[in-house]
Formats: sequence, C-alpha cells, structure tokens
Amino acid sequence: MAIIVQKYGGTSVGTPDRIRAVASRIVAAKEAGASIVAVVSAMGDVTDELVALAAAVDPEPPEREMDMLLATGEQVSIALLAMAIHALGHEAISFTGPQVGIVTDHGHTKAKILEVRADRVRDALDAGRIVIVAGFQGTTADGAITTLGRGGSDTTAVAVAAGVGAAVCEIYTDVDGVYTADPRVVPSARKIDEISYEEMLELAASGAGVLNLRSVEFARNHGVAVHCRSSFTDAPGTLVKEVDGSMEQAIISGVAYDASEAKVTIRDVPDRPGVAATVFTRMADANVNVDMIIQNVSEAGTTDISFTVPETDLTRARRTAAAVVAELCARDFTVDESIAKVSLVGAGMKTHPGVAAQMFRALSDAGVNIDLISTSTIRVTCVVDGDQVHTAVRALHDSFGLESAEVTTDSVPGCGEGER
Amino acid sequence: MAIIVQKYGGTSVGTPDRIRAVASRIVAAKEAGASIVAVVSAMGDVTDELVALAAAVDPEPPEREMDMLLATGEQVSIALLAMAIHALGHEAISFTGPQVGIVTDHGHTKAKILEVRADRVRDALDAGRIVIVAGFQGTTADGAITTLGRGGSDTTAVAVAAGVGAAVCEIYTDVDGVYTADPRVVPSARKIDEISYEEMLELAASGAGVLNLRSVEFARNHGVAVHCRSSFTDAPGTLVKEVDGSMEQAIISGVAYDASEAKVTIRDVPDRPGVAATVFTRMADANVNVDMIIQNVSEAGTTDISFTVPETDLTRARRTAAAVVAELCARDFTVDESIAKVSLVGAGMKTHPGVAAQMFRALSDAGVNIDLISTSTIRVTCVVDGDQVHTAVRALHDSFGLESAEVTTDSVPGCGEGER
Repeated sequence: MAIIVQKYGGTSVGTPDRIRAVASRIVAAKEAGASIVAVVSAMGDVTDELVALAAAVDPEPPEREMDMLLATGEQVSIALLAMAIHALGHEAISFTGPQVGIVTDHGHTKAKILEVRADRVRDALDAGRIVIVAGFQGTTADGAITTLGRGGSDTTAVAVAAGVGAAVCEIYTDVDGVYTADPRVVPSARKIDEISYEEMLELAASGAGVLNLRSVEFARNHGVAVHCRSSFTDAPGTLVKEVDGSMEQAIISGVAYDASEAKVTIRDVPDRPGVAATVFTRMADANVNVDMIIQNVSEAGTTDISFTVPETDLTRARRTAAAVVAELCARDFTVDESIAKVSLVGAGMKTHPGVAAQMFRALSDAGVNIDLISTSTIRVTCVVDGDQVHTAVRALHDSFGLESAEVTTDSVPGCGEGER
Repeated sequence: MAIIVQKYGGTSVGTPDRIRAVASRIVAAKEAGASIVAVVSAMGDVTDELVALAAAVDPEPPEREMDMLLATGEQVSIALLAMAIHALGHEAISFTGPQVGIVTDHGHTKAKILEVRADRVRDALDAGRIVIVAGFQGTTADGAITTLGRGGSDTTAVAVAAGVGAAVCEIYTDVDGVYTADPRVVPSARKIDEISYEEMLELAASGAGVLNLRSVEFARNHGVAVHCRSSFTDAPGTLVKEVDGSMEQAIISGVAYDASEAKVTIRDVPDRPGVAATVFTRMADANVNVDMIIQNVSEAGTTDISFTVPETDLTRARRTAAAVVAELCARDFTVDESIAKVSLVGAGMKTHPGVAAQMFRALSDAGVNIDLISTSTIRVTCVVDGDQVHTAVRALHDSFGLESAEVTTDSVPGCGEGER
C-alpha cells in the first residue's frame, strides 16, 4: 500500500473545528487506499504564547529549556488530531519527535536532523493505523528535546517521508500551490503545476514563502516528491520533484520578492587585501546572516562595502559594523532598511542568455532603479527600493509573459545571441 | 551534600510571578547548602483547559492520547521554572517524566510507577545543577507517555526522593500542614507537627486532602520522610515519617470528612450465599470504586445491601445496580447523594478502647444521626447526613479536645474498660 505523508500547518489545526476537518481529510485519504502519516504543527498562536510566557520569567531563556517549552505545542496538536480521527471511527496513534526517532544535532532552537529511525512509524502503519507525528521537534542522541527552527515541520514531514519511503509528501497550507508571483501583488499570477527542486530552492531562498528552504533541500537530497497544496480544496497544487523527461522546463518559473532585508554599507574602507575577509568574519562571529555582498570600485585608495542582512539580524549587524569601522579605520557605516530584493528564477536561464538584460530593461522601463545585482545559474536578483518592489514584480511578470504557460523572452530567438 | 526534593503544585506555579517566587525559594535552599530536585505540576487551570480541548474533538478520547495531551502541562511548567532559576543566575535543567526514567505500567491516565531510573538526576546534581522534574507523568517500558492520575505529582516527588536517596521530600501546598481538622470547619484546629505514615494514610483515605494517598503509601514503602508545608511561609509544616521513639503517639490525630460519596442501597435481595459476591463483582467489573459496605440483618429471607461510592462513579454504579436488581430478583435500589463520611484517626486507638463509644456519644449529643459505621485498627468512620457533617466534625474535635496537644478521652482511665 502506498504511503502518503501529509503535513498540516498551525493554521490548518488552529481550532477544534479545523482539527476535525483535517481528521476528515486524513480519513478520506486512508479510505481511498493509502497508508497515512500526518505531520502537524502547533495550533495557531500557541508557539507565540509560549514564547511570551518564557519572556515573562527570563529575558534570555536557555535554548535547551526553550525547546523543552516549545515542543509542547506540537504535542498538544498530535494528541488532539489522533482523538479527532478516533472520533471518526479510525485508529490513530500519535508520536512526538523523540518517540518517532527524529535524531538531531545539539543545535537547540535550530537543530538539524541527522537521522530518522522510522521503525515505530512503519510498525504502526503495518498494523493499519493512521500515524500522527509532531513536527518541528526531535531529540539529541543523549535524549534532550530539540526543535528545528522556522519551517521545521515541513522538514519533519520530508524527513519522515524519506524515512518510510513515502510515495509523496503533501504539504498543506492556506495557498493552493506555488505561483509565478505572489497573487496578492500580481493578480494574473499562474499556479505552477510542476517545478524542479533547484528552481524551488531559488524561489524559497528569494522570498517565496510557500515552502521552507531546508525542507526543499532535504527533499532534493533524498529524492522525496513534495506536493504543495491547499487544505481547503481538493485541487492539485504544485509538485516539486526531480527534473525528468516528462517535465517541461520553463525558461522562467517565477518572480519572487523579499522585503525583510536591510542593506549595510561600510564607507571609505582602506582598499587593501584582507579587508573584506575581516568584515565578514566579524559578521559571521556575531551570528549575522549575510546574504548579498557588493564591493564598489576603489577610489583614491578607499572603497565601499555593501551587504544585505535579514532585518532580524540588524541589531547585531549595527553593533558589529561600528566595531569594524573602528578596527579598519573606515569613515562610517550606513543602514538602509527600505530595500527589497526581487528575483527572477528559471532553469531555462542556463540556455537562454539575455534574461538578465531583459530583466534590467523591464525594471528600467517601469522606472525602478537597481541598487545591487546578484546572480546564480538559474536566478537573477536585483535590490531595489522597497517602495518600488511591487511595481518591479508586476513589470517582470508582465515582461516575461508569466501569466501564460508559454514564457516569452525578447532573446528568443535571435537578439539575445549577441549578449551571450 | 544532602538532597532535598521539593514539590510545587499547580497553584504555586500558576502565573509567571509565582514561578519566579518558587524559583527564589529553590535558589535559597540551594544557597543554604542542599542539592535540590524540584517536582512541579501543570500551571493552574492548564489541565482543565486541555481536558476541554480533548472533549471538543472526541467525546471519548483514547486514554493513550489523553496522556500525550495532558503531559504537556507539566512540560511547560518545568521549562519555565528552569528559565526562572536561570534568570536568578543559577544553573537548572529540566526533565520530563520519561526523560528522568519514571517507568510505569500501561495503565494510561492512572499509571503506577514501577521503577525510577534516577541516573540522569544524580548526574545533574553531581554537576551542581538544580534539577526540575515534571510531576504526574512517566513512560511505559516501550516508550508511551503515561500520567499517574489525581495527585500524581506528589507520588512523582516521593518516588524521585526514594530514587535519589533524598533526606526529605517537601510537598509545598497552599496550606501549612496537616491539621487536627479542616480549619475552615473547626477554627480551633491545630497543626500536627509529626504524624506516622499509617495515620496519614487513614486521614488521606478519609478525605483529608493535603497529601495524596498513593504518595503516602509510596513514602511508607520506601521510608521517605515527607514534609508537608506552605509555599507562602518559611514555617515548618507537618512531618510524615516512620514511628520512632522520639515521636509522641497521640491517641487521636485528627478528624477528617468526605462529602464526595454517595450511598447505594439494593433492597430486598434474596438472602442466600453468593449474593454479596455477585453485587460487588458486578461493581468491580464496571470499574465502580466501592468504599464502605454494610449488609443489614436479614428479614423474612431478604436483606438490604448498602455501600458507598465516589460521586464520580455514580453513573456507572446506577447502571450496574439496575442490572444487579434484575439478576438477583431484588426489589429495587435507592441512591442517597446527600451522605458524608466523618472519620476519627489515631494510632493510640489500638491501646485505648472506648474511642468508638465516645465518638458515637459525641455525635448523638450533637444531634447527628449515624447511618453506617466502619472501623480499622486506627480509624472509626461514620456515615452521616451531609447537612450535618460540619456539626459532626466540630463535635468530635471538641469532644476529644484536639485543639490542645493533650488529647482527652472519657475512657482514660477506667470507664472504657467495660467496652473492650
């Protein structure tokens, strides 16, 4: 019997009524002939409430105890979901992350999965039961409870799917798939039926929030097909899988944006070897997650170094930048919190030169000024003014004709040749 | 270094402020030179809220999943208490029941502790840490989470104290010890400084709610000294321990009452051998917890069988009684929910005859009618009308002079002799 892993987020299990609805969906899948493992998150705002409780007793709670606290959120969900399935006359059994053998490193609050010992899940499935697993949590080899950090339940689902050899891992959310752009920004955005792991990774890293980056990496590394779909409809969503002959490779898959970063510029740094190394070693030591980096042309022996960081890391980044300015005898540093990234992602880019040029032209035609540029083989990212990011997304979606399945580029055929 | 186990109930950790107060008390004990293990219950009403959530998804939730759900309550408390101690600059580490090696049987929602593997607690204490343990919960040998039922956190505390060889197990509650009677009913009631396990067992079984019956049994079986005291003062409370030469054995330790039982009477049962066995086998099969039993004198070949049951078991008791009436061709059954038990407990009773006679006389003088009577070597219990139970408690407390440490009885010396 095929095994299907289904993952339901906090919104899907936010109230007793919604838990009962999820139970019905699971039972329907079971009655259709599959073995079901459901991975669930904490109910709605429970995690936020637990974080507030912790803050009320300790301004800087130890991470081990934070994990002990937060892991209760998912444990409540799994018990309630198992009960709701029982109320429908089916047999369900719930397991916490530690019980199900999700072994992680010791990185409390952001642990990485080392191994999934899925014997208990397989035994319960063999006994005809529906298995409910707590997302977001695991155990160290010596028995401490860990949590996997943001989006961890997606990663749990993919890891369990890999562990039990599931046919597919279905990630249920409040949107019905991955779109060519955020439909709130681009009403003509189109749902993508199939997408490769690589493109999904670039989209997730560029701000498309549907799937968590680490879960897509895990899926790619273990060859788990991920079906991203809505918990409110039965319509198919977006299938993330290995590229094969059956999959049509679009030149451009989608446009993503991310307004949650800030730009830091250290000005008039003496232009000598090792300067960049010093800046980014200090940032890494301060646990600042640096994304894009650009170093301007040197002028009169000094240079400017700019980089983007998540706004959540900005306090640490400022403190570190001040120290670096003093250490390197730079002039000063500036912070621009109003920036946003807009990214164009597509596997077909590799064989279609001119995509970047068309992107720059489209932004220019829309009056959007480009601040920084970074590229990978299947992605081009521009940093633009935050106020202009929606304009930028719409201009790109329109320029590349993403509202139809047939992507149009200026560069095909012909005129892109000269830009190769 | 002496090890002290401290147990804090749900009221003591009901809010972040109270958790911080408990943390201060623990740190003070640690700084006074002891190794501390703290066992905590779920915060305030958390358990009730979880029960309500379960009821909202499943009218009859499986007990295994109920335990999975309820165990989260204590897990939240231990994490928050460890954080609060950390905020005071001390090192604390929390453990769930499963983590700390509290191995139970498979009796979900009312599991019994089979073994405490206290290695992790001892290792953490040796490392100088304050250890926080979740009360009320454990694990089966094959890894399912269990809960210990009502009062389970007291039992956890005593079991951990036995496991680590603690000098004393301090049970903190909102009262400052065990009293000769409920001070709300008898304002002149006196706090008992020391009491034997046997007397405490009889008091707990008779309705004195301070300590849970099972925890006292566990303490007696493992020789753990239990100090029952208030979390709001530093005054010593009541020490429950083995009788030794240093302990003055009072004739009467206290008066307890319990208004939470109901009386069932099966009327005109044919008086033949095996009838009582049938009645109480059926009740046991229906999981009805029968307390006192009385069979009246036979009249014309039939008899009445009366017994008391907790009001929580009354629905099952009624159903079973109806079936028994049909099976045994009895007349009918009646239920009296207005009864109450009043009990006199004292180790000195064994050597002082006439206590029962004085009890009956005191009740009679106070105009209290006695319905049923049951005795043990150190206890006499009378079932009386629920409306009269406070009058009965006050009359007995007064008659035996329990407000002073010198108990007075009519029967000493002399007049009790004839009643031996």
